[in-house]
Amino acid sequence: MAVTVVGSVAFDSLETPFGKRDRVLGGAATHFSLAASFFTDVRVVGVVGEDFGEEELSVYATRGVNTDDLERVSGARSFHWSGRYEEDLTVAHTLDTQLNVFADFDPTLSPGAAAASTLFLANIQPDLQRRVRRQCRDASIVGLDSMNYWIESARDALIETMREVDVVTLNDAELRMLTGEPNLARAARSLRDLGPRVALVKQGPYGACMFTSRGYFSIPAYPLETVIDPTGAGDSFAGGCFGYLDSLGDPDPSDDAFRAAAVYGSVMASFAVEDFGTERVQRLTDDEITARFAEFKRMMSFEEPVRARR
Amino acid sequence: MAVTVVGSVAFDSLETPFGKRDRVLGGAATHFSLAASFFTDVRVVGVVGEDFGEEELSVYATRGVNTDDLERVSGARSFHWSGRYEEDLTVAHTLDTQLNVFADFDPTLSPGAAAASTLFLANIQPDLQRRVRRQCRDASIVGLDSMNYWIESARDALIETMREVDVVTLNDAELRMLTGEPNLARAARSLRDLGPRVALVKQGPYGACMFTSRGYFSIPAYPLETVIDPTGAGDSFAGGCFGYLDSLGDPDPSDDAFRAAAVYGSVMASFAVEDFGTERVQRLTDDEITARFAEFKRMMSFEEPVRARR
Repeated sequence: MAVTVVGSVAFDSLETPFGKRDRVLGGAATHFSLAASFFTDVRVVGVVGEDFGEEELSVYATRGVNTDDLERVSGARSFHWSGRYEEDLTVAHTLDTQLNVFADFDPTLSPGAAAASTLFLANIQPDLQRRVRRQCRDASIVGLDSMNYWIESARDALIETMREVDVVTLNDAELRMLTGEPNLARAARSLRDLGPRVALVKQGPYGACMFTSRGYFSIPAYPLETVIDPTGAGDSFAGGCFGYLDSLGDPDPSDDAFRAAAVYGSVMASFAVEDFGTERVQRLTDDEITARFAEFKRMMSFEEPVRARR
Repeated sequence: MAVTVVGSVAFDSLETPFGKRDRVLGGAATHFSLAASFFTDVRVVGVVGEDFGEEELSVYATRGVNTDDLERVSGARSFHWSGRYEEDLTVAHTLDTQLNVFADFDPTLSPGAAAASTLFLANIQPDLQRRVRRQCRDASIVGLDSMNYWIESARDALIETMREVDVVTLNDAELRMLTGEPNLARAARSLRDLGPRVALVKQGPYGACMFTSRGYFSIPAYPLETVIDPTGAGDSFAGGCFGYLDSLGDPDPSDDAFRAAAVYGSVMASFAVEDFGTERVQRLTDDEITARFAEFKRMMSFEEPVRARR
C-alpha cells in the first residue's frame, strides 16, 4: 500500500497575528505527504529548484516519505509563496507568488510512483492532474483538490478531470462556485453527479463534511484556543484522510472507512495549524494522533438521558 | 415542569428567494414557545396589539401554549418586522421595523409564569431581561439570547444580566463581538468566565456548538436541500433545547442532557426553516422529531474499521 501525491513543493513566507516566518518548507504536496506518512508509505511528486537543499529533504526523510519523484532543476528556484493572514485567520492575502520551476511542471511518474494504490492530485492545473491520473492506472482511490482560480479559468478541464476521480475535496465556497448552487447539500449532489462518489467539503474553522451515497457526515474542527498558522490545513486534512484510507488496504472503502478517514483528516489539520509551516507535524507522535482521534469522538458523541415524556 | 419564555411576539413580512409572506405570525417568543411545546408545558410572556386576533392565538392554543401572559393593548398595533434575505439565506436585510406596543414592553409575570422551572429570556433589552429573571426566582435553568444591537448599545447591562443566567445562546459573530476574541474557544471561555456555565453558540448553516465545564460538543446543521425561510431558526433551536431540558425534570442537568438538548434544538431549527414563519412547526409531529433526532445521530457517528497498521 502506498500513496502518491502530486502538487506544489514550495517555500512559504508567512505572516500571521502570531509572528512571521521567512522561506519555510511548504506547498500542498509537502503538507499532504507529511500528514499521510503517519498512516502509510508516501511518495511525493513535485519539482524544486537549486535552493532546495538537504535541510528540506531531511524533513521528508525523517517521516519516511520517498522523494525519488521530486525533480530538482539546476540553475532555477523553487516555487515561493508569500502571504499574510488577517486577525481571525480565515482570510489570507497573497503578497507575492513566484512560480519559478513550478511554471513548467509536467511530471512523468517513476514506475514506483505510478504503481500507487492511492493517488492524490493536489491543487495544480486540471489538465496536468488528468495526465497524472492516467499515469496511475492501478490506483483504486483517487482524490482531487482544486481552487477558485482553476474553477474560473479552466472549468471545463477541471470537470473533465473530476470525472476520473473518486473523491473531490473543495472548500464550501469553491464547491458553490463550481456548481452555481448556494445550498451546500444541492451543490454536493451536483458535484457527485459529475462522477466522484465522495464530496469532502472543507469548511475552515467549522470543520468539514462529507456527502456519499450513504448520506451525510459532519466533522467539527478541533476547538483550538490558539491557531498559529492555517497554511496547509486543507492539505494536511487530505493527507490524514487519504493516508488512513490507503492504510486499510481496501480498494473499495466502506462508508465507515470514509468517515474515520475524514476524522483522521481533521485530526491532522488540527495539529498542522498549531505552529508555522510543517513545524508541529514534524514533532508529532502517533500517540498524539490516537489521543486526538478519541477527543473527536467525545466532541461528537451524545446519549439521550431518560426523559420525562409528556 | 414548565418553561416560561419572554420576548417578542410579532408579525413578520418576509421575502426569501422562495417567495413572500405578508404579516405572518412571528417573533422570538413565538418561535421558541411552539418549538418547546413539543417537549414540555410552555407559557409565553409578551405584548401584542389589537391587530392580534383569534387566528394568531389559535396557533398557540393548538400547541397547548399558555398565553395568559400575552398582554393585549387596545388601540395599538403589534410589533411588525419586514425583512428580505439574500440568495444564500445567511444575510437578512431589515426593510422596516415597527416596534409599536413592543416599545413599552416591561412585563410583570403572573404567579403561574413566575413559577416556571425553566426560563428563557429571548432577545430583548438586557435590563428588562434581568427584571424578568428576578421575577422567576425558582427557575433552575435560565437561558438568555441577545443580539449585536444590545452588545453595542447596552453592553454593561447585558453582562450584568448574563451573570444571573446558566446558559447563553449567541451566534458566533455576536460572541466574538461581546468578548473581543476572534478565536471561538477563547471567546466561549471569556463568556463562561462571566457566569454562565454553558455557552451555546449558534453557527447558522454550520450548526451549533456548546462549551461546558465538561468540554466541547459540536452539532451539525441538518443538510436540507431547500431552506425556505431562516426566520426563527435560532429561537426554534432554543425552544427545542430548553423545552427538552425542562422535560427531564432535573434542576441540574448533566452534560449528556445538555448535549441531547442541543441536538433537539438543532432538530427543531431544521424543521422551522422548511417553510415560512411557523408553518412547518404548526404541522410537525412527534414522530418526525424522533426520526430526525435519529438522523442527527447517524450524521455524527463513526466507527473505525480494522486498520492495517504500518
